[in-house]
Amino acid sequence: MAAAAQMVEIWRGGLLESSHAGHAVICDASGTVRESWGDPDAVIFPRSSCKMLQALPLIESGAADAFGLTDAQLALSCASHQGAALHSGAVARWLDGIGLGEADLRCGAHEPYDRTARDLLIRSDQAPCQYHNNCSGKHAGFLTYTKHIGAGPEYVAPDHPLQRAIKDAFEEVTQIPSPGFGIDGCSAPNFATTVQGLARAMAYFAAAPETGSARDRAAYRLTRAMAAYPEFVAGEGRACSELMRAMGGKVAIKTGAEAVFVAILPAQKLGIALKIVDGASRASEAAIAGLLVRLGVLDAQHPATLKRLNAVQRNWRGLETGITRLAPGFA
Amino acid sequence: MAAAAQMVEIWRGGLLESSHAGHAVICDASGTVRESWGDPDAVIFPRSSCKMLQALPLIESGAADAFGLTDAQLALSCASHQGAALHSGAVARWLDGIGLGEADLRCGAHEPYDRTARDLLIRSDQAPCQYHNNCSGKHAGFLTYTKHIGAGPEYVAPDHPLQRAIKDAFEEVTQIPSPGFGIDGCSAPNFATTVQGLARAMAYFAAAPETGSARDRAAYRLTRAMAAYPEFVAGEGRACSELMRAMGGKVAIKTGAEAVFVAILPAQKLGIALKIVDGASRASEAAIAGLLVRLGVLDAQHPATLKRLNAVQRNWRGLETGITRLAPGFA
Repeated sequence: MAAAAQMVEIWRGGLLESSHAGHAVICDASGTVRESWGDPDAVIFPRSSCKMLQALPLIESGAADAFGLTDAQLALSCASHQGAALHSGAVARWLDGIGLGEADLRCGAHEPYDRTARDLLIRSDQAPCQYHNNCSGKHAGFLTYTKHIGAGPEYVAPDHPLQRAIKDAFEEVTQIPSPGFGIDGCSAPNFATTVQGLARAMAYFAAAPETGSARDRAAYRLTRAMAAYPEFVAGEGRACSELMRAMGGKVAIKTGAEAVFVAILPAQKLGIALKIVDGASRASEAAIAGLLVRLGVLDAQHPATLKRLNAVQRNWRGLETGITRLAPGFA
Repeated sequence: MAAAAQMVEIWRGGLLESSHAGHAVICDASGTVRESWGDPDAVIFPRSSCKMLQALPLIESGAADAFGLTDAQLALSCASHQGAALHSGAVARWLDGIGLGEADLRCGAHEPYDRTARDLLIRSDQAPCQYHNNCSGKHAGFLTYTKHIGAGPEYVAPDHPLQRAIKDAFEEVTQIPSPGFGIDGCSAPNFATTVQGLARAMAYFAAAPETGSARDRAAYRLTRAMAAYPEFVAGEGRACSELMRAMGGKVAIKTGAEAVFVAILPAQKLGIALKIVDGASRASEAAIAGLLVRLGVLDAQHPATLKRLNAVQRNWRGLETGITRLAPGFA
């Protein structure tokens, strides 16, 4: 088992202040590792980076079509959104449209990351609700599937038909049995896999043909929905939205808690998965940007790239403090 | 140079999800390393963990006594506070008392970490001011010194008499020349040193007699002020305040950005310094708690300890998700 590779460095005053190591794999459509750093076999929780895998049953089952879901809704089903009005409103209308409501969600409530939405709640003395949870779009997809197949309301229970369907799909596209699951922040089971397994799943999505099997078509559609609606996948100012926009809708990417990041590159038929071992998102964002630049799909000088990599960091008074850059030998 | 030692592990669903490595040193009053993990000679920026060193000139110069500063104000001069009314109000009154105001600060403004203060600003459509900056107490001390010696207003400039005095004191108590400085979040120079150098400084503070040299008396007084007024050093819910309270005022501890933590143990005449290489505060808080438990000054079962170490983590719905614990072989 290889040690984690140094990936991202935080410099201040000409000295290295902090550093981040991780594992990364670039996989092609045959499941072959093209390049890797650290240990491709490291077991990780994909967390929210695998939401497009968790959305496969929604489409494959026919539920998405039965309820006439739009591509924007499919993007939202793969989202870690920031609870802006755009997101919470869309989830509310979605659930209303299938005859369900906020109380049917099982994701829990947290303060929206979106400042405008947050301040609006505070000014009106309202508590955040489950619509604001960053995973509420995924859960709307979960409820749509559950309603379609007529299953019970506790859709995050590991033995619920939905979670069993997700596990099957997850293991098939990662091409490796999951060694176990954890309970995610949103209460859904999150299946573990290897970095290589996750990259293999992304390469599958990248290569899935529009007119193949039901799963191929679902993967094709989810990838295009994410890339076409970056604002639904995360939100203003966020890495997923900004970097997907910077790549002009040609690549789908997704972050996960504890510093996981994945990318689906349809033109190249490549998939990427990476995990920073310490769980720092600043590092996973810099690392994925570095790999996307390396593969020629992201402009190193785009403001969305420079926000995360190789640009001077500034403090509260705007003074230069340091720089975030890739470690020598990585990407 | 030794590699960083594994210190803190984040577990989920029975699997290791993330981990944190770092350097730590326990030093005695003679400057001898009692125990160490990782590389004692690793160069780090102490960031806010060295605020008690930055406060030495304030007392040694006679400025603190000339302006009649209380122990609560001295604690605030060593604080990374959360901008609660307690903190911002005390800084406002302090500056008013020495004939200065908010515009004289050079720390910049940021939203207070304290939720009540934050919500109050949002509800009243007010922007945060420099009083809310977590370093405003340190800067009030800086201004008090500057006023006392009649120096110019740009007190964070590296060649300002205050910063030169801080550098001299810093190098004397760390017993090693500083290899350079960075600009901190609050715009003050932050001098680099080794983990051992920082631990040596903390051991000096721990052993400083009440009736020794001007510096000894300053170090003695700052240590007691911090331990006696934990709520001024950080705030409700924060590690410094809660853990100092849990130790009954017998130990002074201080966090710094990018996962530095120090402790001053007067009864044992020991100093601790640690740095998590990836900069994650959740890990530096767990690691310092582990070392304080190991040294017998913190109860492993105290709620303040369990908030950071060996207690089950829960998600937005209160479900168990995992546990944060020390890595095997550390503390």
